[in-house]
Amino acid sequence: MTTTPDISISSAEGQACHSGPHGYIQDKPRYLNRLKRIEGQARGISRMVEEDVYCIDILTQISALSSALENVALGLLDDHLRHCVLDAAREGGDEAEAKLKEAFEAIKRLVKS
Amino acid sequence: MTTTPDISISSAEGQACHSGPHGYIQDKPRYLNRLKRIEGQARGISRMVEEDVYCIDILTQISALSSALENVALGLLDDHLRHCVLDAAREGGDEAEAKLKEAFEAIKRLVKS
Amino acid sequence: MTTTPDISISSAEGQACHSGPHGYIQDKPRYLNRLKRIEGQARGISRMVEEDVYCIDILTQISALSSALENVALGLLDDHLRHCVLDAAREGGDEAEAKLKEAFEAIKRLVKS
Amino acid sequence: MTTTPDISISSAEGQACHSGPHGYIQDKPRYLNRLKRIEGQARGISRMVEEDVYCIDILTQISALSSALENVALGLLDDHLRHCVLDAAREGGDEAEAKLKEAFEAIKRLVKS
Repeated sequence: MTTTPDISISSAEGQACHSGPHGYIQDKPRYLNRLKRIEGQARGISRMVEEDVYCIDILTQISALSSALENVALGLLDDHLRHCVLDAAREGGDEAEAKLKEAFEAIKRLVKS
Repeated sequence: MTTTPDISISSAEGQACHSGPHGYIQDKPRYLNRLKRIEGQARGISRMVEEDVYCIDILTQISALSSALENVALGLLDDHLRHCVLDAAREGGDEAEAKLKEAFEAIKRLVKS
Repeated sequence: MTTTPDISISSAEGQACHSGPHGYIQDKPRYLNRLKRIEGQARGISRMVEEDVYCIDILTQISALSSALENVALGLLDDHLRHCVLDAAREGGDEAEAKLKEAFEAIKRLVKS
Repeated sequence: MTTTPDISISSAEGQACHSGPHGYIQDKPRYLNRLKRIEGQARGISRMVEEDVYCIDILTQISALSSALENVALGLLDDHLRHCVLDAAREGGDEAEAKLKEAFEAIKRLVKS
């Protein structure tokens, strides 16, 4: 089974999310479930193209996948604001400003994507 | 390796795309490549969550995946308009109206997703 | 009352929409009504800023205005597809291809805006 | 000149933005300028419809207006996060959680509009 060349996403530690663990950790199983489902939807769309399914049906599945992806992103953002950003803001100083700026850039990418 | 329960996407024949093959057929290898890449990005995001990567890094990858997905959808839509819809319009009759209405509904979903 | 310097939108004749009048003409009063309302919403948002209204309330009104604008655009696009594009497609030739390409570029701007 | 019936946007005081003035206040002239321009664009689009301008030209202006509106919203959101939300977070307590939840709902509307 040809494995898909994953994007070499550097699973760098990523900046420590301030004092506590990342906001999403407590919901990790649920996020993994939703992302597995998204992976399955992506695979399903590939198979529709392989089987020459009608364009409109494929577009319908892509819109559904986009919405599912958007909802995962909104969930992660919510968790990040209520944990990482809030913790940093409570500790004050430059860290808080940096966290808010970083969160805003992520929000902008989400709005524009 | 636990296979991801694919969405039971009925690979229904789907309505025959009018007289000719679907618009995207001539570009099928390229679409399959891009969709394989999207699948890999989705898997990569799952792995980031598994490895407790920083929220913002995950959000960055999700925005990139959303854009890639949007571009595939726009490609399929372009092909569909220039082949399926154009063929139907040339043949005239109710089929053309139905095709345009169907294409518009897909565009609306894309704009709203 | 200081009139707002309108954008110098060239009310160029614009390319004749193929054989018939533009698709939206038959719904013109309704479009003008909706656009007047949108203008009023934009003015209302200006006034909220003038009156130092709370940021979130202003953002709520901007999201409502964006959705209203999107729906007007989708209406115009639907009319354009079912009239201008369909007429051109029926007449065939390069005009049809040009019309579809032009419509697709408008759809892409809409999806990406 | 028939004035446009403004949306009766209650210029309610709106919840006091925590201790300080709203984040956007220091940039108020710039926001008012941009909103005046947006109002002019909306009026320009009305006039294009009045003058039976070609559909695609109108759609192009609507996409430009949508982007301008989105950028004003992102600016307001950035100011709100860096002032209202940050101030509330520093003071801690339930106010901070409420502010973040409120900001997240505004972000969700923006992403989905």
